[in-house]
Amino acid sequence: MLQLLSEHACFGGVQRFYQHDARAIGLPMRFSVFIPAQAMDARLPALFYLAGLTCTEETFMIKGGAQRVAAELGLILIAPDTSPRGANLPGDSEAWDFGVGAGFYLDATQAPWAKHYRMESYVHELRELLAAELPLDPARIGIFGHSMGGHGALTLALKRPDVFRSVSAFAPIAAPARCPWGRKAFSGYLGSDEDVWQQHDASALMSGLRTPYPQGILIDQGLDDKFLAEQLYPEAFEAACAQAGQPLTLRRHAGYDHGYYFIATFMEDHLRFHARNLAGS
Amino acid sequence: MLQLLSEHACFGGVQRFYQHDARAIGLPMRFSVFIPAQAMDARLPALFYLAGLTCTEETFMIKGGAQRVAAELGLILIAPDTSPRGANLPGDSEAWDFGVGAGFYLDATQAPWAKHYRMESYVHELRELLAAELPLDPARIGIFGHSMGGHGALTLALKRPDVFRSVSAFAPIAAPARCPWGRKAFSGYLGSDEDVWQQHDASALMSGLRTPYPQGILIDQGLDDKFLAEQLYPEAFEAACAQAGQPLTLRRHAGYDHGYYFIATFMEDHLRFHARNLAGS
Repeated sequence: MLQLLSEHACFGGVQRFYQHDARAIGLPMRFSVFIPAQAMDARLPALFYLAGLTCTEETFMIKGGAQRVAAELGLILIAPDTSPRGANLPGDSEAWDFGVGAGFYLDATQAPWAKHYRMESYVHELRELLAAELPLDPARIGIFGHSMGGHGALTLALKRPDVFRSVSAFAPIAAPARCPWGRKAFSGYLGSDEDVWQQHDASALMSGLRTPYPQGILIDQGLDDKFLAEQLYPEAFEAACAQAGQPLTLRRHAGYDHGYYFIATFMEDHLRFHARNLAGS
Repeated sequence: MLQLLSEHACFGGVQRFYQHDARAIGLPMRFSVFIPAQAMDARLPALFYLAGLTCTEETFMIKGGAQRVAAELGLILIAPDTSPRGANLPGDSEAWDFGVGAGFYLDATQAPWAKHYRMESYVHELRELLAAELPLDPARIGIFGHSMGGHGALTLALKRPDVFRSVSAFAPIAAPARCPWGRKAFSGYLGSDEDVWQQHDASALMSGLRTPYPQGILIDQGLDDKFLAEQLYPEAFEAACAQAGQPLTLRRHAGYDHGYYFIATFMEDHLRFHARNLAGS
């Protein structure tokens, strides 16, 4: 069922890359997993990382610098790819912000995307599959991500706080229904009815909730991020959290940009945040 | 003189990528630098990292996970590219182990390589240039590297222990005159006189020395490294160190391979080793 593509010893644990036939996608999908040494003795908490536009299942594991702290804390890390690959739909590779590498972690409803572009269902499929295949504790799963993947982490968590017990994000697209990236993706994948879009917009979702994460949500945002003003809208999510009574730690960092040098800098804080949240659940 | 290509805040310091016209190479060259925040107040020790076959000036900074510890220790990190780019010599891009991406950190003597492939002189040019341009202490410079870059670090250090005051390596090509990668590179760049090759072979160089690094040399080697038996020969360097009275810590790690998951795992140990060695000099 799972095809092991490669395996590397890493910080006393093991870094693996897999491929499998994804039911939700109807195509083979790749993902990566880091399993720390503690998994020999116990079922561990696990953390999904959803990457941003143009990334793959490899990006986080190469650039995030997360394995060192995950090895210390006993956290399993899981990173899916960012879209289906090999669907070969017309126009799926013409833009870096739509189609291949840009699945936006939702289930498309519009032709021709609806057949394969079902990343929201896929993340749940992968979660259920790995709960059976890996030494992880299905009651202790968290989720985080970056940019498009921050959008994915927030929206998937807000829809299923019962399965994702902890959530954080780096520079998320926090109100996609009102930014160019989100509007383009939602138009293409979901059609023109903007009411439907609200189900995939973290700020809109939050305003219909009441404190889904009493232990708080953590977001880091660089202030030299060139996408901040036009695409990210953390202030919209901040306002929605205030309205929902949701504790939010939104840290704004002078000088930091949108890339992995920013992400790596604050990675340790996120892993410790999730480990704390998942320890008690 | 130095053209700043990009700059990223990282662990409280700054990650920069530069291009400049390299005298030794006769072409533009790129390199990367990490400067920790302590450089505001003092001239800091600096560490050159030489990367392996097919890598660029970006590889170490993306995959090594070194900036966190360098920021803690107050170490400047410098990573040059692995060969000239844009020379467009016949055959320079046909193999991944010779020509572009495979400069082997030596000055070629054979046509057509001798004109541009002068990476040994280039590393020294860059060292002198950055001693003038960056807040580094030229009396406290160390060097390390991986695979081909481990060969480069060891050979450049053994020839100039007066300028490189500390040296370590990950899975170095430790006796290139006797392995296929080294023999191919040395034949092409240096010609058929194997006596000349000895000047670029760490194990041969060490046997002519007496304790060039009294504070020791650190080498990490994975035992699941697929290049270990045919290409690396750490045991030859170990024997030469024993003969030269050179203290060597050669750590053999079960399960680890040749890649950056291995390197990242032991990166912190190397940075602390160099910081200790460079603190007192």
